Amino acid sequence: MKIDVCFSPALYPVYHNPEAIVVVVDVFRATTTMAAAFKHGVRSIRPVATVEEAQEYKAKGWLVGAERNVKRCDFADFGNSPFDYTPEKVAGKDVIFTTTNGTRAITIAKSAYRVITGAFVNLQAVADYCLFHGRDVVVLCSGWQDKVNIEDTLFGGALVEVLAKTGKYRPATDAAVIARDMWTNNKRNLIAYLAPTDHMARLKANHLEDAVPFCLTPDSVVVVPELAIEGETLVLKKVMTI
Amino acid sequence: MKIDVCFSPALYPVYHNPEAIVVVVDVFRATTTMAAAFKHGVRSIRPVATVEEAQEYKAKGWLVGAERNVKRCDFADFGNSPFDYTPEKVAGKDVIFTTTNGTRAITIAKSAYRVITGAFVNLQAVADYCLFHGRDVVVLCSGWQDKVNIEDTLFGGALVEVLAKTGKYRPATDAAVIARDMWTNNKRNLIAYLAPTDHMARLKANHLEDAVPFCLTPDSVVVVPELAIEGETLVLKKVMTI
Repeated sequence: MKIDVCFSPALYPVYHNPEAIVVVVDVFRATTTMAAAFKHGVRSIRPVATVEEAQEYKAKGWLVGAERNVKRCDFADFGNSPFDYTPEKVAGKDVIFTTTNGTRAITIAKSAYRVITGAFVNLQAVADYCLFHGRDVVVLCSGWQDKVNIEDTLFGGALVEVLAKTGKYRPATDAAVIARDMWTNNKRNLIAYLAPTDHMARLKANHLEDAVPFCLTPDSVVVVPELAIEGETLVLKKVMTI
Repeated sequence: MKIDVCFSPALYPVYHNPEAIVVVVDVFRATTTMAAAFKHGVRSIRPVATVEEAQEYKAKGWLVGAERNVKRCDFADFGNSPFDYTPEKVAGKDVIFTTTNGTRAITIAKSAYRVITGAFVNLQAVADYCLFHGRDVVVLCSGWQDKVNIEDTLFGGALVEVLAKTGKYRPATDAAVIARDMWTNNKRNLIAYLAPTDHMARLKANHLEDAVPFCLTPDSVVVVPELAIEGETLVLKKVMTI
């Protein structure tokens, strides 16, 4: 089987494979936060594309996580930090969620065989999910406003490495090779490698770098958020590790 | 000043900077071939997007280079090998040129401050051109059918390195950093690094790998092809190294 890495949502039409599992990643921080929320017992997360939609849900009494340009939206219950979603606040609850980049990528990929979300925190769980289904995989990097970013590409490379090591997957294109090599060259030194990147600068400027070590530490979460489509609504639900 | 690397024509709208010099690159082989043709005295190259346009020019008596899926089109005088464009055949001549990926990228970028073509063969000349103009730079990788490829990204990384060493340029985004690091990690071993890539497989399958060492050797050409727009027509002309 093949694994590919799509570096930006703007490239997704080129990498679309209707028979593949799409792994949407937004390391800083949407898909890390989703994994943390499921670890802490959230029942479902509904990704919505716009702040307006999120506000409408809030007005109807839903719990809402909303972020734009790394900051929590004023009206929201939660921002985009994994530390916001504590068991006390989210266990057993349904949450609406919108972020600058991560939720849009989920919408774009919704016609794939399966859409799940991944991040370093649930890397092995995502790999196990792919192996269980035995399908081609496309990692869809959320990027930043359609530009390529380093942290999501690194996650793509990590998943290429983990799946290739099983002997069951190989890189589909040059993009998967680029991501894999980036990961191999920098995996022992992630925080230092990411220090000068665009998104780290944004997080630091807003005093939001507290979650960075959590975002970059593999396998603290053993669940996989998987997309279901209920009527017109996208809903992420937890899949236990296979 | 800043230098960015756009990994695919499909991403170009996201990286477009109307004040920048756009360096279109298609290492295998369109922009290498263009550089070689100018070195051998071609007067102008008109990039056209479709095989049909190239055929119309041929019917009117023009010299035509045309390639699709690495192979020369039957009706054409030249394919996409730099070795096709010998001084005997091209000196003083105007040539029409269409290739699978490289000529399309030129068309996409035509509204930038300047559009030039670059490849390893004229790397330093391209860098000198950028320094002379003192503008931001966007390297536009031609890729393969809008997918990211390794060889064009490596060229982007090489130009980031050369320009950053002058102290006058820095990487604009994570994409430029990714490209630079790929180049730094592999520049001493380019042929081995590229051996397992998608495009090398295509070239080998068609017995077209003879030009690979030429394509990967820096600075055998000291000219820069620069785009001019004459009415509706795109024309590349030679600019001497500054």
